[in-house]
Amino acid sequence: MDYYSGQINKLIESLAALPGIGTKSAQRLAFHILSMPEAEVERLSRSIIEAKRNVCYCRNCFTLTDEELCPICKNPNRSQKTIMVVENTRDLAAYEKTGKYEGVYHVLHGAISPMLGIGPADIRLKELMQRLQGDVDEVIIATNSSLEGEATAMYITKLVKPTGIKVTRIASGVPVGGDLEYIDEVTLLRALEGRVEL
Amino acid sequence: MDYYSGQINKLIESLAALPGIGTKSAQRLAFHILSMPEAEVERLSRSIIEAKRNVCYCRNCFTLTDEELCPICKNPNRSQKTIMVVENTRDLAAYEKTGKYEGVYHVLHGAISPMLGIGPADIRLKELMQRLQGDVDEVIIATNSSLEGEATAMYITKLVKPTGIKVTRIASGVPVGGDLEYIDEVTLLRALEGRVEL
Repeated sequence: MDYYSGQINKLIESLAALPGIGTKSAQRLAFHILSMPEAEVERLSRSIIEAKRNVCYCRNCFTLTDEELCPICKNPNRSQKTIMVVENTRDLAAYEKTGKYEGVYHVLHGAISPMLGIGPADIRLKELMQRLQGDVDEVIIATNSSLEGEATAMYITKLVKPTGIKVTRIASGVPVGGDLEYIDEVTLLRALEGRVEL
Repeated sequence: MDYYSGQINKLIESLAALPGIGTKSAQRLAFHILSMPEAEVERLSRSIIEAKRNVCYCRNCFTLTDEELCPICKNPNRSQKTIMVVENTRDLAAYEKTGKYEGVYHVLHGAISPMLGIGPADIRLKELMQRLQGDVDEVIIATNSSLEGEATAMYITKLVKPTGIKVTRIASGVPVGGDLEYIDEVTLLRALEGRVEL
């Protein structure tokens, strides 16, 4: 791309390295950034490096945060007795958006995947077991409904059951608003198995 | 979004302000950035602010570059006697990709648009006319084939004609590989008008 100058090329390359951004989008973004006021560009540049430098793991639930204890763990209105186990911070945010869950979380940062060489020691399972030595009533497993998520859920169940703490798994079934004819068979069977009396 | 911490929210907001990036993509990008090695994040952050700080207009053709004279204007193999007028640097890059054009460019940075309040004085027309006082054989108008691009082409033609310099417009017609049945009528008529003898 020698029709752009060095700095523009560098910017385009950096942007194109991000997921879901191809060369065309990277070019569009680069020229947009060049047309932005310098103060705004500085803010963008700063927010990137500062987030990277200051964001760490919550010492209790291991979500990404910029304080020692995340806002959820710090909140006295949240019950520390119910722990929802999720794969990552985005999944935590998805449940937070519902605004109805009042317990706390535990972020694993991954799921067990023999295919990718990710074993139980590579995710935050030891830390979960440590938390369960405190006063905990229920562990809700909200890993994804994928092969890896299911394997992780099974593994956690086996670990937690002997402690006597209640272990639950979020329901699998037809999404609300979903059209039956477009839903895969496994989901349909799960929905049938998980049917509830009205 | 109080389920993310301040720094993460700031990063998501900065990214979501870019064109074509919604909140969901911004979240995905933000967590990707947080998972990148610090050196790479620094490079991204630096490339953004450095491009903004160092990129300026080429003093001859007004394309975006980081030198006083862009690589095309500096190239002794390019004919300074043929000037292709384009709306922006991306359009210049599109023609450079063909690898066949051997003249130089003039970047207007916009097109005349009464709707958006952009008049002839708001684009680099005065600078084009100054360049034409030198030794120029031909001005090729390669503004977009939109209403604004056509209006700009007409305006430039009126300005340049009296100087005696040859003015041409890139051809309008059916794109190569285009299927006639999907092409709009205006383009079809243009292609008919512009037919060439075989």
